[in-house]
Amino acid sequence: MSLGFTVKVKDLMGRIGVIETKTGKLETPHMFPVLDPKLKGIHPRYLREVMKCNGVMTNAYLLRKHLSVEMGGVEPPVIHKYLGFDGVVATDSGAYQILLYGEVDVKPEEIIRFQNEISTDIGVILDVPTGLTLNRLEAEYTVKETLRRADESLKLADPEILWIGPIQGGLFADLLTLSACEMAQKPFHMYGLGSPTQIMERYRFDKLVDMIIRVKQLIPGDKPLHLFGAGHPMIFPLIIACGVDTFDSAAYAIYAKDERYMTSEGSLKLSNIEYFPCSCRQCTKYTPSELRDLDWDERTRILAEHNLWVCLQGIKRIKEAISEGRLWELAHSCSISHPALHRAFKTLRKYSRLLERSSPVAKRRGLSIFTHIDYYRPEVVRHVNRVFSRCLSYEGSSKLVMLPSPANLMEGKTLENIIKIRNKFKDLSKVRILSYGYPYGVIPIELEDVYPLGQTEVSIPVDSESKEVVSKIIKRFLRRYPHKLSRVLVILEPSLVSEDLFKDLEVEVNKSEFEMMVEDLSVQDLRRSLKFLNN
Amino acid sequence: MSLGFTVKVKDLMGRIGVIETKTGKLETPHMFPVLDPKLKGIHPRYLREVMKCNGVMTNAYLLRKHLSVEMGGVEPPVIHKYLGFDGVVATDSGAYQILLYGEVDVKPEEIIRFQNEISTDIGVILDVPTGLTLNRLEAEYTVKETLRRADESLKLADPEILWIGPIQGGLFADLLTLSACEMAQKPFHMYGLGSPTQIMERYRFDKLVDMIIRVKQLIPGDKPLHLFGAGHPMIFPLIIACGVDTFDSAAYAIYAKDERYMTSEGSLKLSNIEYFPCSCRQCTKYTPSELRDLDWDERTRILAEHNLWVCLQGIKRIKEAISEGRLWELAHSCSISHPALHRAFKTLRKYSRLLERSSPVAKRRGLSIFTHIDYYRPEVVRHVNRVFSRCLSYEGSSKLVMLPSPANLMEGKTLENIIKIRNKFKDLSKVRILSYGYPYGVIPIELEDVYPLGQTEVSIPVDSESKEVVSKIIKRFLRRYPHKLSRVLVILEPSLVSEDLFKDLEVEVNKSEFEMMVEDLSVQDLRRSLKFLNN
Repeated sequence: MSLGFTVKVKDLMGRIGVIETKTGKLETPHMFPVLDPKLKGIHPRYLREVMKCNGVMTNAYLLRKHLSVEMGGVEPPVIHKYLGFDGVVATDSGAYQILLYGEVDVKPEEIIRFQNEISTDIGVILDVPTGLTLNRLEAEYTVKETLRRADESLKLADPEILWIGPIQGGLFADLLTLSACEMAQKPFHMYGLGSPTQIMERYRFDKLVDMIIRVKQLIPGDKPLHLFGAGHPMIFPLIIACGVDTFDSAAYAIYAKDERYMTSEGSLKLSNIEYFPCSCRQCTKYTPSELRDLDWDERTRILAEHNLWVCLQGIKRIKEAISEGRLWELAHSCSISHPALHRAFKTLRKYSRLLERSSPVAKRRGLSIFTHIDYYRPEVVRHVNRVFSRCLSYEGSSKLVMLPSPANLMEGKTLENIIKIRNKFKDLSKVRILSYGYPYGVIPIELEDVYPLGQTEVSIPVDSESKEVVSKIIKRFLRRYPHKLSRVLVILEPSLVSEDLFKDLEVEVNKSEFEMMVEDLSVQDLRRSLKFLNN
Repeated sequence: MSLGFTVKVKDLMGRIGVIETKTGKLETPHMFPVLDPKLKGIHPRYLREVMKCNGVMTNAYLLRKHLSVEMGGVEPPVIHKYLGFDGVVATDSGAYQILLYGEVDVKPEEIIRFQNEISTDIGVILDVPTGLTLNRLEAEYTVKETLRRADESLKLADPEILWIGPIQGGLFADLLTLSACEMAQKPFHMYGLGSPTQIMERYRFDKLVDMIIRVKQLIPGDKPLHLFGAGHPMIFPLIIACGVDTFDSAAYAIYAKDERYMTSEGSLKLSNIEYFPCSCRQCTKYTPSELRDLDWDERTRILAEHNLWVCLQGIKRIKEAISEGRLWELAHSCSISHPALHRAFKTLRKYSRLLERSSPVAKRRGLSIFTHIDYYRPEVVRHVNRVFSRCLSYEGSSKLVMLPSPANLMEGKTLENIIKIRNKFKDLSKVRILSYGYPYGVIPIELEDVYPLGQTEVSIPVDSESKEVVSKIIKRFLRRYPHKLSRVLVILEPSLVSEDLFKDLEVEVNKSEFEMMVEDLSVQDLRRSLKFLNN
């Protein structure tokens, strides 16, 4: 069994890659639209040709039932021919039906054999989903039984098919760890995080982030991670940023049947919509009231198509963001669509080191800093540390002048003042000039234009937490300064640095042996400052 | 002269309205795509029929020149026939050309007569734009000369045409005020804020917000406000939230010629794009590399069409947000696309009272609170005040129990604890139970489910500024409590309220005469608390 999975570009834990299947290549991140095995809904050929969707998923369990019950037990056809879809076909196993109905009337080995027979490209073993409602003992059973079935199923599995190993355990972190570790030992081509549907339905996206990142760290990095049933485009940026490579979704169709219209920020009831905020071919053809006037079949078919356009556009937007190194920004702005999503985005703070390790060093674009959460993005974490060590590696200057960073200022007049002061001080002996500011804390002025320091834009005024971060860096800097300091002149720009920083610094000064003087940036007469430095 | 402008729905200072012109109705907010008078670019008929755009703008000055120079002095045609556009046509006067070239070779009255002759629907007098680079004396001249021209021009103006009165003054706040006050006296049908282009080019969106809101307060509320040349869809939510009803934009075409691809969050160079994050008919027809392979004319025509789809979609998205009462959320999430835009969004805080006055009381949807900026949104400002007065209007309870608001908690266990404690205390005599939490500060428990208190979701954990706001409300509440207090029991949920609040409250207690006890929510044995309250 050999699987080709090639990663092309990475950002955060998200990645653009290519999965090779026997039918063809599939670029990730990819959403498999789930197709009804009875082929009601959008036609697979339309999906492929007009919507440019290269991979779909259908349900092997339901298809098998449909063929045997409603179609009188016909021979299983090749799935691509049956669907009229010449792209990549993945099949789910019926585990979701176990979650819904408690049990399914098929054995794990039958589902494997059926997937072999229909010649699916990507198959799933019949696992036992943990869900949310189980107690610990029951959850443990689902994990162990899934592992047992994995061994049994892999024996029967067609080696031409890529098999997904489902990881269970739900919100029981230790069980999830156990499941991921054990599954990772088995020769699956992809791993799948089991049934997060109920967690998503309860808007516990923060828990979902924890689950995905936990699993992601335990499975081999060169294999794709699938998320079973990730429904709403609102959460795509976040789950992909956490490392999900593929997922399947029937939500576009389920929402449509419920007459709900998806947007990248949420969903709207068709009955309430006045204006379609979309440029897809259906939304530019009909007004909301025209759509409401169509009969139910037509109306829900069009809604499903629109919902799918939104999903596909969401994926393209994320891919473009990954390729530009802008996934953090995208996930941040998309998190301002629901407080639960924003909460989940904020949990990324605890994973900042992990994210840093998986993000590329060089990026094409400058950085944007909006709130204190952005101080945890990989590039900031990385460059704060770099710049900080650079600041400390100076030749012995006993006197420091700390000026506000020009990058944080927008007023021409303030900038002129900084330049004036710099020029006054730049030739003094043993005096080192540093910029202080957001988000990097301290910057040697000769590095100010170096990427990304000179390409970082900050939303001013900053919030309290941002002030705290910078205040800490400056204090740490003064504490660790490797040479004997005699004088520190701080030029204060009140809108940039809080009074607290100023106060705390004085406390710091009392502890050490240098003298400090604080002067306002607006001061016109620098004689006092010069005298202080020359003493 | 009579103008029909009817406002249908309002949110913040944004509004959905209808302008009646002699040719037909135009729904606002509306963006007039600017058409090249030589009719190069997207065909007006395509704009009208396929893109459903009902109003365009062209340049009267350039058209007049084109007709007389290149077309050998032909009679001015009716503009609708000339353009092949049967919707609303607006014409600009050449002021932008003054800004670019310093002078134009036409007199103000000639431009008015020409607009009369071509039978435009909405016309502009030839004003003198202030721009950004002028000194105060020059700026004063532009304001006064524009006012002088206004009087002269209105005398000649065809009463069937709606005329826009341009307001100048730029960044000189007093001149802008003077201009707006004087213009507001003159019988224009609409008012226009002059040339903000250079301010936008420098990303001073914060200044733009100040300018728009200043002007908006000075002109009659029943007349539309036009913004001349608002280019990028990224800023549409913000300018509309500040009260802009219509604006014109040539940016879609200018960007296209520069091979720049617009998105609602910014723009991308076509040469760098890997994936088109859009579902418009051009972006679903071509891949970026296919588009790059087309010849220049075709390529820029397609880019211009895409850019226009993005703009039109942006407007529809804003209209839908206004009609749902969700414009604040939209402006907030869109502000996370550029730090300068986020900065500008934050300046709305200073206008929170003004925004409150213009926002409707009842909304269809619950409120979402992401960061401390959201505490300044109209509904929160309004309801904090309402709930606060309600809390103070109690019958005389001398003992208070303050419990964390269930709306802020997501864990089932914590909720159970709150209910347990509530039940313990609810029948004690003279004891009043209140919830405290984000964003409203204090809520009488009987109001907890009332709109919007029960429909407000908060992203937890909150930031420091949010804690400060709530801490202030609670302290103010205890200070103003109208009855003699004897005991206050505070049940603390550490993740909800900062230690600082707790400390400050104790300082408060020392000042007054009641006793306070603080207990942790996780406490199992409530005997101590009960004893405290019963004393």
